[in-house]
Amino acid sequence: MHFLILFLLFFSVSFADTKLLNQARQYFQPLADIFPSDDNPITPEKVRLGKMLFYETRISIDGTTSCAKCHPVSLYGADALPKSIGNNGKINPRNAPTVLNSAGQIAQHWRGDRADVEDQAKRALLGKASFGAPSYKWVEERLKKIKGYTLLFKLAFPDEKNPVTVDNFAKAIGAWERTLSTPSRFDRFLMGHLDALSDKEKNGLKKFISFGCVSCHSGMLIGGNMYQKFGIYEPYWKYTGSKKIDEGRYSITKKEKDKYVFKVPPLRNVAKTSPYFHDGSVKSLKKAIWIMGKVQLGKELTNEDVEDIYSFLLSLTGELSENILTVPVLPEDN
Amino acid sequence: MHFLILFLLFFSVSFADTKLLNQARQYFQPLADIFPSDDNPITPEKVRLGKMLFYETRISIDGTTSCAKCHPVSLYGADALPKSIGNNGKINPRNAPTVLNSAGQIAQHWRGDRADVEDQAKRALLGKASFGAPSYKWVEERLKKIKGYTLLFKLAFPDEKNPVTVDNFAKAIGAWERTLSTPSRFDRFLMGHLDALSDKEKNGLKKFISFGCVSCHSGMLIGGNMYQKFGIYEPYWKYTGSKKIDEGRYSITKKEKDKYVFKVPPLRNVAKTSPYFHDGSVKSLKKAIWIMGKVQLGKELTNEDVEDIYSFLLSLTGELSENILTVPVLPEDN
Repeated sequence: MHFLILFLLFFSVSFADTKLLNQARQYFQPLADIFPSDDNPITPEKVRLGKMLFYETRISIDGTTSCAKCHPVSLYGADALPKSIGNNGKINPRNAPTVLNSAGQIAQHWRGDRADVEDQAKRALLGKASFGAPSYKWVEERLKKIKGYTLLFKLAFPDEKNPVTVDNFAKAIGAWERTLSTPSRFDRFLMGHLDALSDKEKNGLKKFISFGCVSCHSGMLIGGNMYQKFGIYEPYWKYTGSKKIDEGRYSITKKEKDKYVFKVPPLRNVAKTSPYFHDGSVKSLKKAIWIMGKVQLGKELTNEDVEDIYSFLLSLTGELSENILTVPVLPEDN
Repeated sequence: MHFLILFLLFFSVSFADTKLLNQARQYFQPLADIFPSDDNPITPEKVRLGKMLFYETRISIDGTTSCAKCHPVSLYGADALPKSIGNNGKINPRNAPTVLNSAGQIAQHWRGDRADVEDQAKRALLGKASFGAPSYKWVEERLKKIKGYTLLFKLAFPDEKNPVTVDNFAKAIGAWERTLSTPSRFDRFLMGHLDALSDKEKNGLKKFISFGCVSCHSGMLIGGNMYQKFGIYEPYWKYTGSKKIDEGRYSITKKEKDKYVFKVPPLRNVAKTSPYFHDGSVKSLKKAIWIMGKVQLGKELTNEDVEDIYSFLLSLTGELSENILTVPVLPEDN
């Protein structure tokens, strides 16, 4: 009799696994290898150039700021700061989102006010707290002065007479960023490997789905595909300890419905990109999970819930490929 | 001015690519690596044994029939016959579906009257036109007589005292069949590689979606996940030339709504598994496409439509891995 109960218990626990897989497949997709764009076809030449430009500091007003400064790939594409420090110690208005898998989103930046990774790369050049360049012209002059780039731009944009432009700068960086995919154990699970997640992680996934986290954090990035109000049940700042209240997309659109609305951040590699939220106000992922339950779901998560969901989120930490991690040698000054 | 038009043309054709990708991702998922089961966890030992048993003829009444007879993997898991020939030249009632990717379906056989690959493997043993074994007991005796299997069953089912059973035969074969995944260029496309499909293939995919083929042929197998009446607009036999009218699931359930209803076949490797339909009545894939348009969509497909969809279907021809293609050495008679 005891054996029968044990058997049934085993069977029912076990049964949940493919059920969970099928459920998960309704909400999530395996991470893409690359995030293509029709406007900016990815070529090896563009990717090579883009990776160099990503590390290029000579196009910043202080000569020390590059994309890599706020998005070090070895730190999973973010900088571990609440708000990034750009040129001359200037502090950016929001937390720097990771560049890894970022191109797979509907838009860039917390408020979605950058259309795509190319738009982000280009406009960062003039950002007062980022590169701080006085004009695109100025950047182009700088790039042209580094003779080594002339051939590299020519190879990346072979049909253009004068390829050294900020638009091509943006395209090259975009092309590289479109290759920054970090598949993880969760993708193995989605591909049918039930043993890719531990029981605790599966429990976390189950709760992530059943509690409703998945209503915003879905798709191949587990986020990044919609906008949502931060603080549905209660104001977010009540729990995050945010000193300044950020009105989110409202500050762009001036529409009441956009108040406190942000792009839902992707959760790929989330365990590696502390601190959290648009203002980096929360350091602990577990606390961030608890806050999300509170303000987004109106739910007081238990310690066990938080631990389970935390476990699941750990399974989203991906592999940093050689493409991502290798650092290029830049052309020398002339 | 001509340049502008060319540019816009290029841009618009090009724009359709990621739009098509996003659309495709709504209907299709990349093919899983394996098709897991909670009742039958996949282990290397089970897979090894299952692969051997797949080629085993000594458990058939005529000593020449194996799973591989009707499902040769080198022919993409089907036998190129309208209806398979089982023991002693007996003809099976329907066309043998491929075993490749088959485990990913909601059920097995054309009428879905086999719950899963394990059920199919087990019941084929007693099938009059397949193995023709007089009883499961008889099969078990045969297996036990081949001493080499004793250890192999023991390794595959280490917790069982008497592991040489038809249930374990079925589980071992099932475990192997659950590994028979054949990813193709279409999966590369779904993973973001826009250049994995040619323009013609993309056109075919577009038509496959917009004509409505996708309303039944969807998911990771492009089919295999629902039942549907064959002949919605017109009787199928009007075009297939079927000599015998098969009533489909009605012959099992006796429910009027199941008349001419079959499991929607997966289209993975479809270009390699002629002849087509439940009775193998149509040899040409192009003709099969045209018939589907006629009887399922009430649509007269043009030659160009058929050619385009045909091109898309070619992109579903997958890779036959070493796991699939290598043929095992079986234990000798004693």
